[in-house]
Amino acid sequence: MANELPGMNLKAIGIVRNEVNQVTTGGYDWQDVVSEVVIDRSLTEALDNLDEFSHIIVLYWMHRTSRQPPHKMHPKCRHELPLVGLFATRSPNRPNPVGKATVRLLQRQGNVLKVQGLDAIDGTPVIDIKPYIPGYDSVTDARAPKWITKR
Amino acid sequence: MANELPGMNLKAIGIVRNEVNQVTTGGYDWQDVVSEVVIDRSLTEALDNLDEFSHIIVLYWMHRTSRQPPHKMHPKCRHELPLVGLFATRSPNRPNPVGKATVRLLQRQGNVLKVQGLDAIDGTPVIDIKPYIPGYDSVTDARAPKWITKR
Repeated sequence: MANELPGMNLKAIGIVRNEVNQVTTGGYDWQDVVSEVVIDRSLTEALDNLDEFSHIIVLYWMHRTSRQPPHKMHPKCRHELPLVGLFATRSPNRPNPVGKATVRLLQRQGNVLKVQGLDAIDGTPVIDIKPYIPGYDSVTDARAPKWITKR
Repeated sequence: MANELPGMNLKAIGIVRNEVNQVTTGGYDWQDVVSEVVIDRSLTEALDNLDEFSHIIVLYWMHRTSRQPPHKMHPKCRHELPLVGLFATRSPNRPNPVGKATVRLLQRQGNVLKVQGLDAIDGTPVIDIKPYIPGYDSVTDARAPKWITKR
């Protein structure tokens, strides 16, 4: 398979600003964290109408991770949880460290989006912003194993 | 803002196979389209346990799009819909053409995932596979404007 396709390079369109500088293994409670997503000023107009949505999807580059992790792992590094395939987890360590978060959009002011629940540390490069569309992005009858949600 | 960060290059981890070769402006009804997502054989083991989930998230590279689209547009090229900011739409033409689809996982067989509803044409490079986690990926009280869902 052609792994190295030409042109698959990303440009940061913005950056995450919050008070979280580091995350220890095992996770962090992001639910109430408020972040600013500061978008490049040249793209300000492209954010128009985004605040008609209550929630948005943020794609970001998890810049402090390993791109060559083991293919099997214990979720959240917890050894009491089963050993599973990397792609069955949301581990930030993956071949392409692109994170995807669905967050509440609290406010848009010019090129700055204030959001709640974004699980990305301060300084994280932002790749894309998309509106969250109920029905397209959500599933009513989805099934997931218990180990993925275990705290 | 530092737009060109080092190392933000993607590797295809797989490719989409289906019978859709081209999409005309205005969209396509993808709901019933069945695709095969063929993952690089070296990553087969990393797919273990994925089939414990009914739905997965596919990130893919929309390779036949423009990366320098206008910042304001009519959704789906329909002029009766309002002129809105690019990031308030799901247009495939965006600075970083990374698509995100939530799809039903019908079957996993070795390095091949059979999925339903993936809105990507044949030959689309795949960047990442994530499990869909109800509650984390879904929002119960989300609000969206009418123009985004209008057919």
